Amino acid sequence: MSFVKRTELRMFDGRQIFYFDSSPVDRVAVDIRPFEPRPLPGDMREDLLTGEWIAIAAHRQGRAFLPPKEFCPLCPTKTDFGTEVADSNFEVVVFENRSPSFSAPSNELDAGVIQALGRCEVVVFSDHHEGSFGSLDRTHMRTVLAAWIDRTREISKLPYVEQVFVFENRGEEVGVTLNHPHGQIYSYPFITPRTIKMLNVAQEHFDKTGIPLITSIIQREIKDGIRIVSQNEHWIAYVPYAARYPYEIHVAPKVFVPDFAELTDTVADAFPEIAREVLLRLDGVFNIPMAYIAAWHQAPVRTGREVFGLHWQITSVRRAPGKLKYLAGSESAMGAFIMDVKPEKSAEELRNVQL
Amino acid sequence: MSFVKRTELRMFDGRQIFYFDSSPVDRVAVDIRPFEPRPLPGDMREDLLTGEWIAIAAHRQGRAFLPPKEFCPLCPTKTDFGTEVADSNFEVVVFENRSPSFSAPSNELDAGVIQALGRCEVVVFSDHHEGSFGSLDRTHMRTVLAAWIDRTREISKLPYVEQVFVFENRGEEVGVTLNHPHGQIYSYPFITPRTIKMLNVAQEHFDKTGIPLITSIIQREIKDGIRIVSQNEHWIAYVPYAARYPYEIHVAPKVFVPDFAELTDTVADAFPEIAREVLLRLDGVFNIPMAYIAAWHQAPVRTGREVFGLHWQITSVRRAPGKLKYLAGSESAMGAFIMDVKPEKSAEELRNVQL
Repeated sequence: MSFVKRTELRMFDGRQIFYFDSSPVDRVAVDIRPFEPRPLPGDMREDLLTGEWIAIAAHRQGRAFLPPKEFCPLCPTKTDFGTEVADSNFEVVVFENRSPSFSAPSNELDAGVIQALGRCEVVVFSDHHEGSFGSLDRTHMRTVLAAWIDRTREISKLPYVEQVFVFENRGEEVGVTLNHPHGQIYSYPFITPRTIKMLNVAQEHFDKTGIPLITSIIQREIKDGIRIVSQNEHWIAYVPYAARYPYEIHVAPKVFVPDFAELTDTVADAFPEIAREVLLRLDGVFNIPMAYIAAWHQAPVRTGREVFGLHWQITSVRRAPGKLKYLAGSESAMGAFIMDVKPEKSAEELRNVQL
Repeated sequence: MSFVKRTELRMFDGRQIFYFDSSPVDRVAVDIRPFEPRPLPGDMREDLLTGEWIAIAAHRQGRAFLPPKEFCPLCPTKTDFGTEVADSNFEVVVFENRSPSFSAPSNELDAGVIQALGRCEVVVFSDHHEGSFGSLDRTHMRTVLAAWIDRTREISKLPYVEQVFVFENRGEEVGVTLNHPHGQIYSYPFITPRTIKMLNVAQEHFDKTGIPLITSIIQREIKDGIRIVSQNEHWIAYVPYAARYPYEIHVAPKVFVPDFAELTDTVADAFPEIAREVLLRLDGVFNIPMAYIAAWHQAPVRTGREVFGLHWQITSVRRAPGKLKYLAGSESAMGAFIMDVKPEKSAEELRNVQL
């Protein structure tokens, strides 16, 4: 297994920060910014028309919005400007989000309020302000994966968390408010609408066949062949048969595993290779950094763990240079997706990118 | 009842076009553009992870994209450039979409293909290239409503249509590819994912209470009062209790009705007043034209007609001047919405706009 050292420290306002290093570095930097109280949890409301929960986090409206590089809160602290990371360098760092959508319970709120409980963390991929997940070297990428595994394990232990969601938004086109390469972890006090739906379908498939759905899907993709983008001994990347976005890639371990917490070292060690390749291919399609949402689907903490398989869904909103795919009327209001590009065609374009 | 005359004609490629006029105008203009075959229907694929249908309409990739005003295909035909509307003026015009996501069945496709059946129409609100639905006068707005009613009635008769969806995307921020004021009608060969969910919740509520869900919601909004934006004798407009977007307004007839087809003249005649007011208030919040998706939820054609009530959902993606709300990781991949603005606060802002 790759060596990864975790150092746990506290930030100026009591938030936890974790340094992940592939070498035995000592991390002792102190966050000396003046104390500020943390925001109270938001509340949750049930959408009566759908039964879905909406989290109201009004304190997030004032969060940092595309600051210039010298005021980037995700850079290491090198000048008088205290960033979120007190050390002057780091490899991978994870900390609690300063403007969280979901937080630990508070007894300062009225009993009538349904608190938006959970935990939101920021995963900073590198101390370099430029670049992205795909531009990390393999060791570095493996350290990020170690952080995802560690955080999934730890957050899953919180009694009020039902689901841990690891993701990365890349590009201002998908609403990124900080350009520094980073991802996020949201954990929810409920199972999200999409996961409920996927869980039901996966359970039905398992009841019928005894096989996890993702395993059957991978078998079909290998049989069809034409939508595969890349594979190695432990992972496969493909454009799904019914892709929703012009460039959508799913990446899954070949052997079923419910979440990061249960990923073996061998499979984890084989991830950076395919991840780098897939993200390079994505940027190569139009030779511009591709805006995307990269979402890790994991089984919920307490249910569906035999039927719901870990996989990475990368969806790009770019359909051509200068043209984005928007979620307009049909997608946004009805949940009915219209695709302009055949999945087999986008898979071919991705395979044809010269690396 | 307001007088509305409908004239049905054919376009150069056989598509139907309907003129709607509030005065008895003769419409005889002939579309003299050279014949071109219409695209074959796209196909539909089932997303194995969710059981949802995705429509693949690869011919749409080449559709018109923000053409300059003199090449606007929705303007009336005044020069040698033949637009979609052959007449040199019109009030409201509806025609079959040239790049439809859903079309009538074709026997030119392989038997194995699941055709994306249905009908997509474009509703042009005015022959003026500038403006929007909210800037129409009341008579004109009533003519648009007459067109929506007529088209819903007619399209509902198609044996392969399960649901008729009337909507308007406004603003390049939500992906509008033509700036001329217009809306669209999509009709689907299935019940859309969101409607299935709403239908289940509404049925459950009806079984429990004997009251349509939308009626109970309106009663609650009237009781709470603080989220109401406007009302008249027949309609009410409110920010929903669990809004998903910074500025979201629902507008519903006070007496339950499943869809446009069953709207009475009296209720229809009272619509333009509240529609104009709500859209003016929306533009007034930041004193800029507000980008929005305005979606009419209607009961499906063949089911849920006693429990699912017609209402208009207007969602704006703007959360502040210069800032948009994006559907990023949590919303897009998990369907879990985070709201930065309290619904009561946005309702107050909307009420406070000076008209």
